[in-house]
Amino acid sequence: MALIVQKYGGTSVGSVERIQNVARKVKLFRDRGDDVVVVVSAMSGETNRLLDLARGVNPEHCARETDVLLATGEQVTIALLAMALKAIGCDARSYTGSQVHILTDSAHSKARILEIDQNKMRDDLAQGRVVVVAGFQGADEHGNITTLGRGGSDTTAVALAAALKADECQIYTDVDGVYTTDPRVVAEARRLDRITFEEMLEMASLGSKVLQIRSVEFAGKFNVPLRVLSSFEGKEGPGTLITYEEDGMEEALISGIAFNRDEAKLTIQGVPDQPGVAYRILGPIGEADIEVDMIVQNVGADGTTDFTFTVHRNDYEKALKLLRQTATDVGAREVAGDNKIVKISIVGVGMRSHAGIASTMFQALAKEGINIRMISTSEIKISVVVDEKYLELGVRALHTAFELDQAPATNA
Amino acid sequence: MALIVQKYGGTSVGSVERIQNVARKVKLFRDRGDDVVVVVSAMSGETNRLLDLARGVNPEHCARETDVLLATGEQVTIALLAMALKAIGCDARSYTGSQVHILTDSAHSKARILEIDQNKMRDDLAQGRVVVVAGFQGADEHGNITTLGRGGSDTTAVALAAALKADECQIYTDVDGVYTTDPRVVAEARRLDRITFEEMLEMASLGSKVLQIRSVEFAGKFNVPLRVLSSFEGKEGPGTLITYEEDGMEEALISGIAFNRDEAKLTIQGVPDQPGVAYRILGPIGEADIEVDMIVQNVGADGTTDFTFTVHRNDYEKALKLLRQTATDVGAREVAGDNKIVKISIVGVGMRSHAGIASTMFQALAKEGINIRMISTSEIKISVVVDEKYLELGVRALHTAFELDQAPATNA
Repeated sequence: MALIVQKYGGTSVGSVERIQNVARKVKLFRDRGDDVVVVVSAMSGETNRLLDLARGVNPEHCARETDVLLATGEQVTIALLAMALKAIGCDARSYTGSQVHILTDSAHSKARILEIDQNKMRDDLAQGRVVVVAGFQGADEHGNITTLGRGGSDTTAVALAAALKADECQIYTDVDGVYTTDPRVVAEARRLDRITFEEMLEMASLGSKVLQIRSVEFAGKFNVPLRVLSSFEGKEGPGTLITYEEDGMEEALISGIAFNRDEAKLTIQGVPDQPGVAYRILGPIGEADIEVDMIVQNVGADGTTDFTFTVHRNDYEKALKLLRQTATDVGAREVAGDNKIVKISIVGVGMRSHAGIASTMFQALAKEGINIRMISTSEIKISVVVDEKYLELGVRALHTAFELDQAPATNA
Repeated sequence: MALIVQKYGGTSVGSVERIQNVARKVKLFRDRGDDVVVVVSAMSGETNRLLDLARGVNPEHCARETDVLLATGEQVTIALLAMALKAIGCDARSYTGSQVHILTDSAHSKARILEIDQNKMRDDLAQGRVVVVAGFQGADEHGNITTLGRGGSDTTAVALAAALKADECQIYTDVDGVYTTDPRVVAEARRLDRITFEEMLEMASLGSKVLQIRSVEFAGKFNVPLRVLSSFEGKEGPGTLITYEEDGMEEALISGIAFNRDEAKLTIQGVPDQPGVAYRILGPIGEADIEVDMIVQNVGADGTTDFTFTVHRNDYEKALKLLRQTATDVGAREVAGDNKIVKISIVGVGMRSHAGIASTMFQALAKEGINIRMISTSEIKISVVVDEKYLELGVRALHTAFELDQAPATNA
């Protein structure tokens, strides 16, 4: 008997039939004696329908009122799911964010959860009821309705699991787990049974968009075991458990390979190497709301420095123009750029305690004749920038080199 | 400068354009310096869409969850109207029923308002904002979402007006006021400038379905001046003010003529006249959930009594069967019935102080050869039952007899 928080996204509750399917899934857990709290999103398409209405009455964005409007989406789903559960003999009760006192700050459309009152939920669970909570929403200290922003339902689920000290937080989605890499690129990509929070964060931020990064951070912070699994019939399975490092996991050197197609690289060369030069170069980029991803700086022998960074490909032209202006201002020699590049990263907590991971990576790429244009490393990740045309070849080579198509012996 | 509560129903807010139209109407009042609280219903069609979803997941009615579901309808409208107001420079803020603490009992789908907290609304009004409140909904003492049942938005508006001691509660609808009778029956039917609460109650319960009867009772109880007027462009006008009797109103003998097509009449004759006989006759009818409208009893010369009552035509067969059983039990002579009858009523506070109203009525009907089958009177109403075929003729005859097509001199 466990306490489980489950979250179902918009596609999983996108129709009457799918809501009934979710109800049947929930009942399986109830039938084996688990206590279940379910968090749901708005039915798919509903949020866009509401936003269209909003744009119809006022082309400008009204933050407070948009939250009032969008919060109805999940409210519809909680009522319908509670009804569907009752229809199959599972007593249930629905709550909006404000009804279970999901207290947030007042930052409309991107509010942060401050506190959750678990009394009502505990009472219902004690009486054998399934508790159905609206994801994505809360209320501030004045009772104003707030929303948590993109992927907010994941965050709600994790926050509820943390508050209730749940045994597991299950995120149901349209994939059946986290993969070693994108199966569309590498056919042999394998579902991971487990992955650490840190690895998941690196994977997510690098483009494996299974879970919202905020909810993973949250789960890690409060040590909530998080499981990603499929909500669709015929795709049942154990999913992927995201948790803290355990003994049995250390054998896996590399957990996965992430990549990002939409990168562009800019280089400013021969910059007089003075304190503050990084700020003078990146300051104007940041002010223009351009997000910088990788940053690499090399100091040359002649007292000048080369400075390279990557941005989203959409921001390339704008960033290039700003950088040319900066080059003139700081007296740099040259500005260069390339928007036909991609980033490939290997991620794994195993590399902390193992030498030679980087050289295995570089060797595998060299063997295929792939030229590395840029390297950046963190404690559990090594990223390289290569020419766009090498993306698939590089990812496949690395997947094989690190034997990701084979399940590690201790990780079954 | 006045404090006005306005209510717009589902048809008045049925599209983006109509919501913008409502915003412009509200702004007219703001521009002349009035404080405005607006109560809105769900966009027309929305409630049925939601109920269809509910029936899809569970054919049985779940009272609590249906209220959670339906409450989203008004929540969408309040957000959109607040946005539309801001778009034309009217600062506004939306509130759900529970956000302005419309405390109700726990009778889901037909809850009654117990208390309203006006602090938030007062604050917003003081800051020059239009307050937009979701009609039809509230929350019970445990924070469960409740709905007030059919026409509940009218009740919300009147309750807010009472709590705020508003100068007027304006109910915007698809008609431009209360008429002397149904204009589809009498082309000369005239919009009334004023009518008393009591008259309105008699008119409403008799089939002139302009306002929800509960909201009229509520307005009368708390002495909230109520105005019915049209929300549609091109139908602007003063509407009809519903208020307590005033000097200027006494000239109008009769305010209007109401009628009800769906009546059926049952008679039990030759009942031994003993104490408790009315209860023995009507008891089984009430227990069968059949609503009885008019009741007339005549005591005959032979120590027996005749007892006649009317029911809704749909209940006729059922009532007849029950009455036959009763006749056997009490030893009555005969049971008769007629389901081809209608009720016509004249309503007016003026008849309190004027004699001869009844005879004018009977004379007008007699002149047209209409046989009266049953008569019932109250302080401000006289109802007759006639054969169905005489409905239009009877209503027109009375409309002319009481000169309802001419505005009374003191009532302009």
